[in-house]
Amino acid sequence: MSKTLNGIAASDGIAIAPAYLLVEPDLSFSKSTIEDIDSEVARYKKAVSDSTSEVEHIRDIAKTNLGEEEAQVFEAHLMILNDPEFTGAIEEEIKNQSVNAEAALDETAQKFITIFESMVDNPYMQERAADVRDVSKRIMAHLLGKKLPDPASIDHEVIVVAHDLTPSDTAQLNKNYVKGFVTDIGGRTAHSAIMARSLELPAVVGTDSITKEITDGQMMIADGLDGAAIILPTDDQVTEYKEKAEAFLKQKAEWQKLKDAPSVTADGKQFIIAANIGTPNDMPGVHENGAEAIGLYRTEFLYMDSSTFPSEDDQFEAYKKVIEGMNGKQVVIRTMDIGGDKHLDYWDLPEEMNPFLGVRAVRLSLMNEEIFRTQLRALLRASAYGKLGIMFPMIGTLGELRKAKAILNDEKDKLIASGIKVGDDLQVGMMIEVPAAAVLADQFAKEVDFFSIGTNDLIQYTMAADRGNENVSYLYQPYNPSVLRLIKQTIDGAHKNGIWVGMCGEAAGDSVMFPILLSMGLDEYSMSATSILRIRSLMSKLNTEDLKELANQACFVSETSEENEKLVKDLMDKLIK
Amino acid sequence: MSKTLNGIAASDGIAIAPAYLLVEPDLSFSKSTIEDIDSEVARYKKAVSDSTSEVEHIRDIAKTNLGEEEAQVFEAHLMILNDPEFTGAIEEEIKNQSVNAEAALDETAQKFITIFESMVDNPYMQERAADVRDVSKRIMAHLLGKKLPDPASIDHEVIVVAHDLTPSDTAQLNKNYVKGFVTDIGGRTAHSAIMARSLELPAVVGTDSITKEITDGQMMIADGLDGAAIILPTDDQVTEYKEKAEAFLKQKAEWQKLKDAPSVTADGKQFIIAANIGTPNDMPGVHENGAEAIGLYRTEFLYMDSSTFPSEDDQFEAYKKVIEGMNGKQVVIRTMDIGGDKHLDYWDLPEEMNPFLGVRAVRLSLMNEEIFRTQLRALLRASAYGKLGIMFPMIGTLGELRKAKAILNDEKDKLIASGIKVGDDLQVGMMIEVPAAAVLADQFAKEVDFFSIGTNDLIQYTMAADRGNENVSYLYQPYNPSVLRLIKQTIDGAHKNGIWVGMCGEAAGDSVMFPILLSMGLDEYSMSATSILRIRSLMSKLNTEDLKELANQACFVSETSEENEKLVKDLMDKLIK
Repeated sequence: MSKTLNGIAASDGIAIAPAYLLVEPDLSFSKSTIEDIDSEVARYKKAVSDSTSEVEHIRDIAKTNLGEEEAQVFEAHLMILNDPEFTGAIEEEIKNQSVNAEAALDETAQKFITIFESMVDNPYMQERAADVRDVSKRIMAHLLGKKLPDPASIDHEVIVVAHDLTPSDTAQLNKNYVKGFVTDIGGRTAHSAIMARSLELPAVVGTDSITKEITDGQMMIADGLDGAAIILPTDDQVTEYKEKAEAFLKQKAEWQKLKDAPSVTADGKQFIIAANIGTPNDMPGVHENGAEAIGLYRTEFLYMDSSTFPSEDDQFEAYKKVIEGMNGKQVVIRTMDIGGDKHLDYWDLPEEMNPFLGVRAVRLSLMNEEIFRTQLRALLRASAYGKLGIMFPMIGTLGELRKAKAILNDEKDKLIASGIKVGDDLQVGMMIEVPAAAVLADQFAKEVDFFSIGTNDLIQYTMAADRGNENVSYLYQPYNPSVLRLIKQTIDGAHKNGIWVGMCGEAAGDSVMFPILLSMGLDEYSMSATSILRIRSLMSKLNTEDLKELANQACFVSETSEENEKLVKDLMDKLIK
Repeated sequence: MSKTLNGIAASDGIAIAPAYLLVEPDLSFSKSTIEDIDSEVARYKKAVSDSTSEVEHIRDIAKTNLGEEEAQVFEAHLMILNDPEFTGAIEEEIKNQSVNAEAALDETAQKFITIFESMVDNPYMQERAADVRDVSKRIMAHLLGKKLPDPASIDHEVIVVAHDLTPSDTAQLNKNYVKGFVTDIGGRTAHSAIMARSLELPAVVGTDSITKEITDGQMMIADGLDGAAIILPTDDQVTEYKEKAEAFLKQKAEWQKLKDAPSVTADGKQFIIAANIGTPNDMPGVHENGAEAIGLYRTEFLYMDSSTFPSEDDQFEAYKKVIEGMNGKQVVIRTMDIGGDKHLDYWDLPEEMNPFLGVRAVRLSLMNEEIFRTQLRALLRASAYGKLGIMFPMIGTLGELRKAKAILNDEKDKLIASGIKVGDDLQVGMMIEVPAAAVLADQFAKEVDFFSIGTNDLIQYTMAADRGNENVSYLYQPYNPSVLRLIKQTIDGAHKNGIWVGMCGEAAGDSVMFPILLSMGLDEYSMSATSILRIRSLMSKLNTEDLKELANQACFVSETSEENEKLVKDLMDKLIK
């Protein structure tokens, strides 16, 4: 009996493979007093030796499939498993306290972790704390007869099924074997969705209950085109989806022909389609998909993938690599967007009741000027190597913009004075994501070279709905006329003042949003690299004359998001094919 | 040596009195092994008997000053102090484990609390858990030689000094002796500020460090007019402030003459000045200050001051009392705004990462239809007793508004069908506080009888800045042109569609905001009752002709909040006196 769960289509494509359940088992236990100490010690020793062979096995697979560096962490685990100071202490605890192995393990591990973690200035010891935690979890699983998921050990094609996927989960996945993602929660802008699109893997998110409905190893289909997950598909379904997958691949091949084509409408109007990137490692995808610019380089990953603040030189190298890699095409780099849901292990920021309404992005930069100035210097130095746009995130008032620009200009003057070259055509822009900035776009436009509309945040603030909160996801409405009016107001405010305006939110690559944005005259469309060719193809089929009325209709006649979705779909059905 | 701390003027007036420090002492302790058990038991018993006499004393004062009901909680504390099951268990623990009294107290109390709290369906036991917690805290303070603050025992005039004031802190204060509030944190919209205004007590909030700078009992001045706290004032300062206080009282007396006057401008244009209330107990203040309507009755206090959901009849009685009390003048009652920062002990809602962007207000009502329908039935029944407006908070989309109205109409039809009378001139309105609603005001205006602009939330979402987060308080800008544009858009959208629009945020009673709102043609100004006469007096001195250009200037010429503040102040200096 096959079963279909509907979710959100988060990344295009079809996968057919067995499920790999990436779900942590329940490792809770009860403390008890033990009579037969010897057999308890023997049980404990078996758990340690089973854990050891397991880790050795995973290390070998990781070494082959992921490389030496990724396998390192398992060597560290083996060292702890073989360290009598640790394993012996647990054995002593069983003997001295007459407690069960689970309790002895838990108490001893906690002691070690507390000691390591207290050495806050020693990153090496901090990592050891994490290792002890991982090793203890594994021994505990063996004691309790549970199985831990080991994504690094995947050695055959699977669809990864999880409640949600975190960045650290995905880091351990072997991308050669993972054919798709299906999760319980999340939306199109969740980490798992963005990750899937950047890996070009089909993904279905927000199925609500896939982790409960499926068993590890069961055959399944992930349909990232229509947002469905099929558990134990019938033969007919497998045949049907194989055909659907093939048709999709054919379409992708068709799109591929547009790789080196300009982005033009059917009536010859030219625009820019750009890529969003997180690290210089994303550059191959940028080129393969024919991006005409980088519309958003999210620099926070430089900070997040580091165990301390990246130095000016490290940042300079990363920025330079991307700028040079674009051969004179523009690269827009956003200053760090830390805070909100993005934290750094090495930067202890105050807890906030509502982090999305707190000190994040440029607010944090302005409060920590030295960290901000380091980033700006790295950016200014890199600007000499191509065409750079520096962009400030979360600007809400002219006061903030003026302060950020003054700091930038101060650093620029100092660099020039000390003989360091800065790019001649450096542009300075800002994100439009705080509603106040969209409302005052006409005023802001007088003081920057460009805008980039960040729809993910603009929508969340305009609708007052946390984009990560499932219970209010019904309010996360990109096509809501209020959101569209603010976007239109931003574009009009920019053009009235002669500056260009892009969009770097997920909405720019959305097939329903795109025709509306084209109708509003948006200049640059920046999206996941994998969406570029689909959108370039769609653009080539559209005539701006046919879209003349669309923007006004969507902003001022339609009253709901649903109406706008239907409006665009009906119009596309009429105009295309 | 006197010392002056500057803060935010949160409630008008001047107080001169000794400080009462409402600050919890640090009750942390170390567990230790005890040799001399007998003397430890004696030390413990003394702490219990000292606690008992202290609670008896507080109970007596509370009985005299606050009444029998408020003193009940101390009777419950005495029962626990006299209960051998509790106090004896601690003694046993000291003896059996040879631990110090602090550790024995803490462990035993935790056990009792855990047991009581596990009886989740038994509100009586839940209250006992709170009592055990309070009593243990008191015994612990005696063991550690610390002094707990006992607001209920205040028996002389004081200025209450606290880091922040919570609703439960203020509930225990004897309002006869409290002459003012001064706090470390908070803004004009903090609970302590709203409370102070409703009690007509001077308050200074956001002094940053008053709790650290002052000692309990030190003489001080709280200047709620200019936002200053003076520690150990000199004789000259005391004289000066006594004069300032007198001048303020004279001005209040002058305002008092306007109590029964209509709210008209110098050129005879009439508007409505209304009061915001939280409970029927606020009605005397409403009448004393000559409110022409209730612009906002916050019903969430009905839910928060209860240990279970208030019944339909209890709600009906509360609503009817207020409606009848207004003798035919309109009362706007807002359906419950639970969620965000407002929680109910008896309603376990999921934890949210960003509660202000989560399931709150009408969102929660629509997800819990039975609770919502109960409130709507109570409101509809009460509408027969006067002129009622029902208002939905946090409406963000037309879909939500239509759903809420459909449920209201369904209940209305059912009541009428069963022969229950519903008011003929019942109006249905909505809050404008989600930016999306302000942007689409022209569309929403077609489907309601009135709007009420909630500036506290509208500002926080428009600026994407939590109004409770000190670190982004610089972004909480009521006069920011973006906020003013959204307000103007709301008023214009309403008037174009022939509906009236009020404001029930704190901004309506703000002397800088008021002239701008008058210039925009806002119909109703709803505020803390104690602000009404000041604003009515200000209105009587203004000529709408003189304000003709102000709205456009503030929205489209000014670029910052500071500019607008100066703009209005300069204009007022020119126009008044």
